Amino acid sequence: MPARLLSMSQFTPTERTKVRRKPDRGSYDRELIYKILDQAFVCHAAFIADGMPVVVPTNYVRVGDQLFLHGSPASRLMKALSSAPFCLSVTLLDGIVLAPTAMGHSVNYRSVVVMGKAEIVEGHAAKLAAMRDFVEYVVRGRWETVRPPTEQEIKATMVLAVPLVEASAKVRTGFAVDHESEYDRAAWTGVLPFQWAAQEPVGDPRGNLKIPVPENIARYSRPQ
Amino acid sequence: MPARLLSMSQFTPTERTKVRRKPDRGSYDRELIYKILDQAFVCHAAFIADGMPVVVPTNYVRVGDQLFLHGSPASRLMKALSSAPFCLSVTLLDGIVLAPTAMGHSVNYRSVVVMGKAEIVEGHAAKLAAMRDFVEYVVRGRWETVRPPTEQEIKATMVLAVPLVEASAKVRTGFAVDHESEYDRAAWTGVLPFQWAAQEPVGDPRGNLKIPVPENIARYSRPQ
Repeated sequence: MPARLLSMSQFTPTERTKVRRKPDRGSYDRELIYKILDQAFVCHAAFIADGMPVVVPTNYVRVGDQLFLHGSPASRLMKALSSAPFCLSVTLLDGIVLAPTAMGHSVNYRSVVVMGKAEIVEGHAAKLAAMRDFVEYVVRGRWETVRPPTEQEIKATMVLAVPLVEASAKVRTGFAVDHESEYDRAAWTGVLPFQWAAQEPVGDPRGNLKIPVPENIARYSRPQ
Repeated sequence: MPARLLSMSQFTPTERTKVRRKPDRGSYDRELIYKILDQAFVCHAAFIADGMPVVVPTNYVRVGDQLFLHGSPASRLMKALSSAPFCLSVTLLDGIVLAPTAMGHSVNYRSVVVMGKAEIVEGHAAKLAAMRDFVEYVVRGRWETVRPPTEQEIKATMVLAVPLVEASAKVRTGFAVDHESEYDRAAWTGVLPFQWAAQEPVGDPRGNLKIPVPENIARYSRPQ
């Protein structure tokens, strides 16, 4: 059954991923969820430590129907995520919604929540492949230009695979939805869009500054 | 004692906020922590629901030594945050660190973790003041131009105050730190900075499009 589930275009809402609050903003569409995941590369992972909820930002890469996470096996985050179910969220802030009323203000965003249970990726080849995915996910074309991980570096890194089984998205777009009669006041109304954008690259003085900035960095963009 | 604690310039690291992993990146400096909090307005709040960790993005405003959160009293988030201790995190992604080795790659970021226990803000005046803070925190000068909340709107909104008592920051800046001998390869190395930036405002066709975009929106910026 899991294999079949993974090939479906919609996630099945569960007790834990069902969007209850403003359900019209909720979606279980795999393509939409993957698009949101692929635009970002930092998530917030929540776990329970000593009976308390803890949330920590961390990097991820999506490869097919799973996410990979990585870190030091000694870190509290990796210990927690490798030993119990957890939750992670990715949020893209798309804009501030300026309404004629104070309470009508809102933000436009696209967010994903994943309920996860991780499997530890074992074996040199599988871990090396995940490392490559990490580098290529953040900067396409980078892997070929850098020194690959040594066996020791790979051994010192924990890689977790999180099958994407329980996930949902929540999206708000567009203008405010205040009552028509509110719009005759003098306040400017609309949306102020926001974007995470790469700025001018800064060369490392320890590196060879004669090497021109490659196109994949000079014209960096995330899949939109 | 709490009153005294709150006036100190450093948070006292606790079992839960002590930065263990890469402690050189950790800070308990109140000014730094407030600066990071003030640049963003979306956090990720983690709580426990049915024994499972859950993380949800939500808006906040910092006012003095506390954060305010708000939402519908019927929402799972507000119910959870008003009834038990929780954790929230704010992360600003500042750049991609391009190293000569695969494993030397990193991200520059500034993040804050707050261990919180919320108090429900009661009373019309206190809630109205928090609403004003919300609007003014996101867009300075906006409050005067919009229709203030009605008594009914205020009643329908739950406002939570979270005293900033347990908090820590984690910051990475600068270039890669690979061994000198790695830098003689042909890979370009450096930092690709990232910034959340406001784009061109888009007027709402339901509003009066003859109103010029005010300066606080046309030249929007967050405190850096």
